Amino acid sequence: MQIDILTLFPEMFQPLNISLMGQAQVNELVTINTHDFRQFAVNKHGHVDDYLYGGGAGMLLRVEPIVEMLESIEKKPDTRIILVDPIGKPFKQAMAQEWSQADQLIFICGHYEGYDERVRSFVTDEVSLGDFVLTNGEMPAMVMIDATVRLIPEVLGNQASIVQESFQRDLLEHPQYTRPREYRGMEVPEVLLSGNHQKIEEWKTKEALRRTWQRRPELLETAELTETEKQWLKAIQAEEL
Amino acid sequence: MQIDILTLFPEMFQPLNISLMGQAQVNELVTINTHDFRQFAVNKHGHVDDYLYGGGAGMLLRVEPIVEMLESIEKKPDTRIILVDPIGKPFKQAMAQEWSQADQLIFICGHYEGYDERVRSFVTDEVSLGDFVLTNGEMPAMVMIDATVRLIPEVLGNQASIVQESFQRDLLEHPQYTRPREYRGMEVPEVLLSGNHQKIEEWKTKEALRRTWQRRPELLETAELTETEKQWLKAIQAEEL
Repeated sequence: MQIDILTLFPEMFQPLNISLMGQAQVNELVTINTHDFRQFAVNKHGHVDDYLYGGGAGMLLRVEPIVEMLESIEKKPDTRIILVDPIGKPFKQAMAQEWSQADQLIFICGHYEGYDERVRSFVTDEVSLGDFVLTNGEMPAMVMIDATVRLIPEVLGNQASIVQESFQRDLLEHPQYTRPREYRGMEVPEVLLSGNHQKIEEWKTKEALRRTWQRRPELLETAELTETEKQWLKAIQAEEL
Repeated sequence: MQIDILTLFPEMFQPLNISLMGQAQVNELVTINTHDFRQFAVNKHGHVDDYLYGGGAGMLLRVEPIVEMLESIEKKPDTRIILVDPIGKPFKQAMAQEWSQADQLIFICGHYEGYDERVRSFVTDEVSLGDFVLTNGEMPAMVMIDATVRLIPEVLGNQASIVQESFQRDLLEHPQYTRPREYRGMEVPEVLLSGNHQKIEEWKTKEALRRTWQRRPELLETAELTETEKQWLKAIQAEEL
């Protein structure tokens, strides 16, 4: 996969050179290029922004530097052009899964300022990381890249199965324990030490259901549960009420 | 404000030294310290993780190195201790607002692995950035820190009013335009060039309502609208259906 990032702060992407993302680049599973769109500034002072029509405080990123930078990048057949923007579609795991199949992703990151509306005509996706306001589009782009790249085969290698993943089944993860068996009076649940695999698996599923119901009940509306799991959930709800 | 970060990868926080976040540190509006909890490893090999009780692939972060690192940090009276974790409460703008009032925030970042359940007894908040899976807790912590620190008075300085903020009123931002007036056949809406301020403000509110209704209708359920705005919304819905 090739990832191209349009940004005014290429140095912000340093964390992608560390740990698993760095390793994925070294192993040539992903190529990440940053492009400073100030290269296509509208004047020799390097300006890429301007005042708002109709008034309003602050400045807005102009359309030309972004579009000209975009056009200068060689595209693959299934390139997605992603505008990182708070009014976009909220980023979800399913999006990362879809993107991880693409040959090329291009991310456009604003910094501090909004975009001229017409930029939207040149992109395939408008995506927001969530309902909060940031000073930059670089951090959310990094998060989306991490979520996507880790799904490319071989990136996690034989670690692929490590993480019992929340959201994989729309259920939150069950509680997990490691040594020591007792810490400041808090003990590992007996069942996990029992060696009875069937009982252990049942406990894990029940605790995942309990946790999801307590913390994020709305996830249960779309979770696909077996008949047995539905029974367990009913029992848990009766217990807790 | 003081921010302490418990992490195995302190170098990932480099982006917080750049641009506005870097400036906020230089201006002493916020102090950011990273702490490598490998310092409290359970053996001389630097181990901080261990196998799961009850089986399962991978490893889990042990409770002792995290808790001992936590205890070694001097606390202020209203310190919040935040566990960055996908099963936590989803991060929202209101959380950033609340946190921006605190004297001290401590973030605990897992990397690649989950936490021993007992870590949860030592924190005040468990927060998730959203419904997706990442290789690390460092990137989400950076995002939360950026959202929070920008709300500290003076961090944005006289730029405070710059960003017409989405989510401030539970409405998405209206379309915004800057020069040129025409770009590849796409023109700036006439009203924004009219100089009629009342008409311009009305247009902005209507377009914010239209955009929210089209893209994120669920936000309108909680948005506080005036009677006039409710009328406009009805008209927009009739128009678009």
